Amino acid sequence: MTERPESRSRAERKERTRQRLLDVTLHLVTERSLASISLREVARDAGIVPTAFYRHFASMDALGVELVDESMRPLRQMIRDARRGRVTHSDIIAETVEILAKQVREHPDQFSFLTRERFGGVAAVRRAIATELRLFTSDLTVDLARLTAGYDWTTDDLEMAADLMVTAMLNTVMDLLETDGRHPEDAAAILELSERQLRLIALGMGAWRSKP
Amino acid sequence: MTERPESRSRAERKERTRQRLLDVTLHLVTERSLASISLREVARDAGIVPTAFYRHFASMDALGVELVDESMRPLRQMIRDARRGRVTHSDIIAETVEILAKQVREHPDQFSFLTRERFGGVAAVRRAIATELRLFTSDLTVDLARLTAGYDWTTDDLEMAADLMVTAMLNTVMDLLETDGRHPEDAAAILELSERQLRLIALGMGAWRSKP
Repeated sequence: MTERPESRSRAERKERTRQRLLDVTLHLVTERSLASISLREVARDAGIVPTAFYRHFASMDALGVELVDESMRPLRQMIRDARRGRVTHSDIIAETVEILAKQVREHPDQFSFLTRERFGGVAAVRRAIATELRLFTSDLTVDLARLTAGYDWTTDDLEMAADLMVTAMLNTVMDLLETDGRHPEDAAAILELSERQLRLIALGMGAWRSKP
Repeated sequence: MTERPESRSRAERKERTRQRLLDVTLHLVTERSLASISLREVARDAGIVPTAFYRHFASMDALGVELVDESMRPLRQMIRDARRGRVTHSDIIAETVEILAKQVREHPDQFSFLTRERFGGVAAVRRAIATELRLFTSDLTVDLARLTAGYDWTTDDLEMAADLMVTAMLNTVMDLLETDGRHPEDAAAILELSERQLRLIALGMGAWRSKP
C-alpha cells in the first residue's frame, strides 16, 4: 500500500510547523530564559493558534527537551564516529576539539541555549541536559578504558577523568560563545588552550594509579 | 575632632539601607535573571523611594557588580590565607576544596547568582565575574609557580593549568548548588570527585614539559 500524495504533504506540513515551533523558541531564548516564554507566544510567532500547539508537543517543557535532544545527539554521534579507529589520546583530543569548535560555530544559538538552560528554571530541560552530558561522559569513559587497558584503572577513576574532560570541553564551549564569532584569533587561542588542558589531563592519567 | 552621634547613626542608617538593597536584589535573583529586575522593584522591596536608590548605587548594574565583589573577594582572601605556608599540591587542594564547600554551604544564594549571571544578560556583571575569576586564576598561577620551581614551566603553561583547576572548581560549585543542600552524601561525593580531579591535574603537571 502506498501513501496517498495528500497525506504525505499533510505529514510534511505538520513536520514543517513542528520545526517552526522549535526554531521560534530557539530564537526567543537568545534573549530570555525558557521559563519566561509562554506557549501562547511561541504559537503566535509560529503562526498557529495556541490549541494547535498540542498536535506537536505536550507542553513547552516537552518542546524544550526536544531542543536539547536535537542539539546534543548529533554532536555525540559525530564525536563517536570520529573516535572510531583513533588509537591515541592526542588523536582523539584534537579530533574532538575540532568537531566541538565546528558545531559551536555553526549552531551558536543551540549552544547558548544549552549553556544557559543547564542551570535554568525548567527542571525537565535541566534534567535532559544533565542526562545528555552523562552520556557524553560515559562514551568518553569507554574510550579511556580502551586507551588505559594496560593500567589498573578502576571504572570509577575512568569516569572521574572523563568527567573532568567533559567539564573542560564545556568550558571551552562557553568561552567560544563569549567571543561571539567576531574574533577568530580569540577562538583559535581558546581551542589551543583547550587542547593543552586535555593533554595535561591525559598526562595525569599516565601517572595516576587507582587505589585498589 | 570627634564625630557627632547623630552623624554616626546617619552613616549607620545609610549603610543598613545599602545592605538591604543588596540583600533584596540577591533574593530577587534566586527566581529571576538580574536583567529582568528593575531599580523600582528593588527600591520598593527595600522600603525606599526609587530616587533614594541613587544615594547608594549609580545604577542596577553598579549594584550587581557590588554583589559580585562582595561574594568573590572574601573567598579569594580566604583561599589566599589558607595557602600561605602549605607546600604541597595535596595540602593546597584539600584546603581549597574545603573552603569552597564551606562557602557554598553558607552562601548558596551568592553562588547561584554568580553561576547564573556569569553568562547572563548584564554585561557589567558578566565582566566583573570574569575579572574576579581571572584574579583567582592568577593567584593560583603564582602558587603553581612556587610548586613547580624545579621544572621548566612557562608562565603560559602555568596559567593553562591554573585555568583548568579553576574550571574544575567552578564545576564543583555548580554541582554542589544542584544538590540543593538536601543530600549531604551527594555533597560529600562531589567534593571527593573534585579532589581526585585536582589531584589528576597535579599529576599531569608532574609529567608535563613546556615547549621552550
